[in-house]
Amino acid sequence: MEKKLIFTNDVAGAVDEAVARMRPSGVFVLVDANTKSSVLPGLLAGSEAVAGAKVIEMGAGEEAKTLATLAGVWKELGDAGANRSSLLINLGGGVVTDTGGFAAATFKRGMRFVNVPTTLLSAVDASVGGKTGINFNGLKNEVGVFAGADLVVVSTVFFRTLGRGELLNGYAEMLKHALLTSGAMTERLLCRDVGSFGPDELLALVRESVGVKERYVAADPGDCGLRHALNLGHTFAHAFEELGMWRRSPVSHGRAVAQGLVAALVLSHMEAGFPSGLLHKVATYVRDNYGAFGFDCEDYPRLLGYMERDKKNTARGAVSFTLLRAPGEPEVGVRVEECEITAALDIHRDLLGI
Amino acid sequence: MEKKLIFTNDVAGAVDEAVARMRPSGVFVLVDANTKSSVLPGLLAGSEAVAGAKVIEMGAGEEAKTLATLAGVWKELGDAGANRSSLLINLGGGVVTDTGGFAAATFKRGMRFVNVPTTLLSAVDASVGGKTGINFNGLKNEVGVFAGADLVVVSTVFFRTLGRGELLNGYAEMLKHALLTSGAMTERLLCRDVGSFGPDELLALVRESVGVKERYVAADPGDCGLRHALNLGHTFAHAFEELGMWRRSPVSHGRAVAQGLVAALVLSHMEAGFPSGLLHKVATYVRDNYGAFGFDCEDYPRLLGYMERDKKNTARGAVSFTLLRAPGEPEVGVRVEECEITAALDIHRDLLGI
Repeated sequence: MEKKLIFTNDVAGAVDEAVARMRPSGVFVLVDANTKSSVLPGLLAGSEAVAGAKVIEMGAGEEAKTLATLAGVWKELGDAGANRSSLLINLGGGVVTDTGGFAAATFKRGMRFVNVPTTLLSAVDASVGGKTGINFNGLKNEVGVFAGADLVVVSTVFFRTLGRGELLNGYAEMLKHALLTSGAMTERLLCRDVGSFGPDELLALVRESVGVKERYVAADPGDCGLRHALNLGHTFAHAFEELGMWRRSPVSHGRAVAQGLVAALVLSHMEAGFPSGLLHKVATYVRDNYGAFGFDCEDYPRLLGYMERDKKNTARGAVSFTLLRAPGEPEVGVRVEECEITAALDIHRDLLGI
Repeated sequence: MEKKLIFTNDVAGAVDEAVARMRPSGVFVLVDANTKSSVLPGLLAGSEAVAGAKVIEMGAGEEAKTLATLAGVWKELGDAGANRSSLLINLGGGVVTDTGGFAAATFKRGMRFVNVPTTLLSAVDASVGGKTGINFNGLKNEVGVFAGADLVVVSTVFFRTLGRGELLNGYAEMLKHALLTSGAMTERLLCRDVGSFGPDELLALVRESVGVKERYVAADPGDCGLRHALNLGHTFAHAFEELGMWRRSPVSHGRAVAQGLVAALVLSHMEAGFPSGLLHKVATYVRDNYGAFGFDCEDYPRLLGYMERDKKNTARGAVSFTLLRAPGEPEVGVRVEECEITAALDIHRDLLGI
């Protein structure tokens, strides 16, 4: 959905080239406290466009993805004289690219924006695919629009400073893309530790992973059917995240996705014949690397409630899931009754030792 | 930009047919206090879909077109279980259709919506063309998206209860559409009083007028060039409206547009040779029917500031206008220097006796 996607480790050069081509009336850079200190200085030094830009800072972390933050970005853009010919560069993880993309897509009914993902998770997921939005009313991405970035600059140079937990966040989405492609691609990821890659090897893997997402998005930009395959594991993951928010002890998206993939593969085994061997391998990898998000059967009604309210759910008194018949063979919109979901959650807890 | 446009005086029938075709998972109706009391009861009695819908009420008037109202609509939709397969019916004037359209286009990244304009102004302008949005940071429609309604049901049955001022509001946009078409179409409107039409005659005129807008929108849905012709008179009109808001004495959109057309035709005469005979006829009609929006030369710097910040303005230290070389011959993006704008405002004030 984005107009252009570049994989490079010369980010400053890619940004300057894009700005020279797009000729915006003004350039704005959205950062959070983390990217302001860890990423912005390098780009200020290396990129003429960034050096001349007005910097807008928003709060860091999922809790900052709010209506108040969105309104703050709109206000700073307006007060600084941004117009429809201006350009916003979103420099950060998914929270920055989601919020900044929504702000740009709605400011004066739409200005252009460039995403520069600075985490593995945003590189392989949030920054590509044209989904923007904020959390609202206690729900993730409750409001937003489909709006593709004019350019996404994907690089691994920013990942050097990421902790293991941050890398695992992105790796969970890469596992999902692998599961949506083939058993071989999945096994290749399961036999490696996330900290064992050099930057060039990782850039090649990221490119392959983004390619999977791009193929599904291109086939269904409006998220009406086939693209739901990318939702694999996410119906559970969103519910785990919302349970975490409700407990005031948020769980990271990637960790929630890793848990969600295990639950979705359990359900895929039960409902669609997904091979139990690979399910167990994935569960072991997740347990060993991600640990477990703890919950018990008293949490089931709340989790089911979240799943039924999920924006992709159209079933009544049931939940529709993306399941896998086998690696690379997704089935979207599979309606599953509550009793089967709770049975899957029981097995999920067994597998992860919860 | 909307997918379908129906002109009918059987609104309930048109709505029920649309709902039967679209099969939404739930129907929601957005009203303000005015349409709740004057329009909703009739539809509740006549339309099965409306009778079964959840009603959401927002504040009435331009002052209600705020972020807080938008958030309130999102919240009510979410709390009532709306999802992406649901349908929002916006029942009201431009404030309701603009706010409701923006809410629907962004709720869970987009649910369907139907506009049922209840004022002449919204019938010929706001409800068609796919522009949605709210006021923000002191500016009109500062944030929003382009999103076409799935259906617009245009009718004149609701206009019976409108006062003369309300009818004049819409008539100003009809004058604009006529000026963008031909001298003959313009003269036909100038020789009539807005209160002199029967409902069927008016429906035919509205249909003709909406047709003008549709042709310009179809040629340029993203508002990149040709569609700017529809901005005729609006650069001035928005500045008059913002001056009114700043004075805490708001001027209605239609009255501002009538004044704005006169100012734009003055500028068109000065810069593009628009015939002075028709300029004087339009000015006389506006003065006799709309009165004048008062301002003096001390207000010029503020008005110029508003015009330069207008979201369609891309000129620096100047303002770009849509002007007419002659009726039906628009020229978009004409850059005009401040001294010429103030000269036009002087003549405008003379013509309207301000």
